Amino acid sequence: MAQAVRHDAMRAGNLAVVLGELDRRGPLTRAALAENTGLTKTTVSKLVADLIDAGMAVESGAVRDGERGRPGVAVHLSGHRVAALGLEINVDYLAARVVDLTRTVRLVRTQPVDNRSSSPDEVIGRLRELADGMLGEAAGLGLSVAGAALALPGPVDRSTGTVHSAPNLGWRQVAVADMLDLPLPVVVDNEANLAALGELWFGSGTSLGDFLHVSGEIGIGAGLVVGGELFRGAHGFAGELGHVVVSPDGPECRCGGRGCLERYAGQDALLPPGAEIGDLLVRLSSGDRPAKEACERAGAALGIALTTAVNLLDPDTIVLGGIFAPLFPWVSGPAEEALRARLGHMRAHVPAVVVSRVGADAATLGAAGQVVQRVIADPMSFLPTPQR
Amino acid sequence: MAQAVRHDAMRAGNLAVVLGELDRRGPLTRAALAENTGLTKTTVSKLVADLIDAGMAVESGAVRDGERGRPGVAVHLSGHRVAALGLEINVDYLAARVVDLTRTVRLVRTQPVDNRSSSPDEVIGRLRELADGMLGEAAGLGLSVAGAALALPGPVDRSTGTVHSAPNLGWRQVAVADMLDLPLPVVVDNEANLAALGELWFGSGTSLGDFLHVSGEIGIGAGLVVGGELFRGAHGFAGELGHVVVSPDGPECRCGGRGCLERYAGQDALLPPGAEIGDLLVRLSSGDRPAKEACERAGAALGIALTTAVNLLDPDTIVLGGIFAPLFPWVSGPAEEALRARLGHMRAHVPAVVVSRVGADAATLGAAGQVVQRVIADPMSFLPTPQR
Repeated sequence: MAQAVRHDAMRAGNLAVVLGELDRRGPLTRAALAENTGLTKTTVSKLVADLIDAGMAVESGAVRDGERGRPGVAVHLSGHRVAALGLEINVDYLAARVVDLTRTVRLVRTQPVDNRSSSPDEVIGRLRELADGMLGEAAGLGLSVAGAALALPGPVDRSTGTVHSAPNLGWRQVAVADMLDLPLPVVVDNEANLAALGELWFGSGTSLGDFLHVSGEIGIGAGLVVGGELFRGAHGFAGELGHVVVSPDGPECRCGGRGCLERYAGQDALLPPGAEIGDLLVRLSSGDRPAKEACERAGAALGIALTTAVNLLDPDTIVLGGIFAPLFPWVSGPAEEALRARLGHMRAHVPAVVVSRVGADAATLGAAGQVVQRVIADPMSFLPTPQR
Repeated sequence: MAQAVRHDAMRAGNLAVVLGELDRRGPLTRAALAENTGLTKTTVSKLVADLIDAGMAVESGAVRDGERGRPGVAVHLSGHRVAALGLEINVDYLAARVVDLTRTVRLVRTQPVDNRSSSPDEVIGRLRELADGMLGEAAGLGLSVAGAALALPGPVDRSTGTVHSAPNLGWRQVAVADMLDLPLPVVVDNEANLAALGELWFGSGTSLGDFLHVSGEIGIGAGLVVGGELFRGAHGFAGELGHVVVSPDGPECRCGGRGCLERYAGQDALLPPGAEIGDLLVRLSSGDRPAKEACERAGAALGIALTTAVNLLDPDTIVLGGIFAPLFPWVSGPAEEALRARLGHMRAHVPAVVVSRVGADAATLGAAGQVVQRVIADPMSFLPTPQR
């Protein structure tokens, strides 16, 4: 029995090594996999057979083997069976994405809805319906969803799936994961953290160095990616850019503070009540002066908060996401100007400000991506049949 | 030859393993060292003999061996031979500390001097004299100084030993390490970073969890310690708390920005020109109202900047060091009040604000401690005689 446990642990570790290698460098022949991992060819062949059975890997055509020049059959990740569900509750929409193991987006749903006018029960009920629908559609595509992750606009206790406080939703201490009660494992995380990971896995990747990803919605959050990993802080609450103090005696904020960035650059500060970001874009495109000035004010406030963030966090690059992605042409200039004016004297390197490649999808993609990471790190736990 | 190189590399690694074990858990018997490291007793005995020869370890009296109950001779770190020199150039003083391998402080010098009125050449010349004097005194104590580290109040390029900009000294692009030209290896680092490490190694250690250490002098800096390691940012310039924007239209700062924390809570904002921190303490102790109000204003501004820092960095604890250590009774209350008012609504955990245990010595101790860490991580490079 102890032997069986040890054998299973070793097999679990080896499956993860092979799948991780396929993820990072596939397609690869079995010979190349053996060479890269240090496992024997026999072991690799058996592990690859298991991964193919599980629908996580698939053989492709013959490739030339770099080392020996003989053609061999290559193996690569398969997106045909295993998938992940990314969910998001934000202030004015619900969203869901199904992503397969190759990180290809397979299903997309976004429901505009004002969640501030509903109770957590109602909102979570609507999300459950959305998620159930997505699971059904995924099954129709032959996909088996390994797990879900949910993005929320506030600090989250990931161990219990509880959001401590989402001031823009008016939520406090809501046990979201329990209430959602989906028929698969669900983790809950902060929207801005997942958006930064979405940018890392589905957008700019590691090409930006260490980056601070800014998620602008009704609220504003940020996630810092250092060396390809998210910097979470001691309690997972780092990156609350929206509550950086821009002006200490400024207007009251829902967080209990005053003069927070959100009050100057959040969606509510940019748009008249009831208006949508699309309306603002139309006005901006037609050269509407008040619209441009609103963006300039928001960009300047963002630049002040980012100056502070750069002084504390020192990233290589700042990525503007969420609503700041479509508004980039109008907000990035004033933000960069503030950064250069305030930082240029003291630092050789003022971070570049670039636009997100995934925009408003970042958090939902990051959520799904987190499930994909879990499968790749521990494929044995997601094999379809019990192993003993 | 290749064999000799490999043997040396293995010996270097093993010496580091044994010395590191003595540092973390000594005194230990050779048997316990063998058990903890997985090395054979013969290898351990030979390595211990080398460390004793090098003056890095020493035998103490017999201790009871936990495992077997037989008494054995224990070995522990020795502070008798190897030492480290910590140096600091700050705006109004020069400082030096000699610390031995056990992190016991052996020599202390602080020279009050207004470095703003001198050129970098003059300041560095004075520091060289101070350092030379310390090296002589250390030799008199039988100590061999393995290296030096120098703390500077500004962002530093550690690879070249150049300070990019120290606005409070009026320095730009000064190649400090080259100019100092000491007869031993010198690394240069940011004062606030080294002060945080000083608190970690000589003060509160890891008992505070992840902590943000605030160094208040003329300038204000901070260092974030996460999991016992310094968070440096992409270019080593993280933690510039003094240039966090407290009020965007506030007074101009030497950094090129406006309304930076330094302008509200730095030493120049707290003291009339020419006054010293001792004068302020005397006035505070006698209940002088303007002095108390100056501290309250500084504390409130500090609280705003720390609110922002907590929102971005999420530490367990905030440690007030530098001038904020003696001023703690007068500045910490207003700072904590601002933190609670602005953070309490959104976070379960508002970081405790505690006083530094090492105060103004933190940076110089952190500098010396960094050299000690280097010796412990690679003792072979610091053995007195060539090894081949």
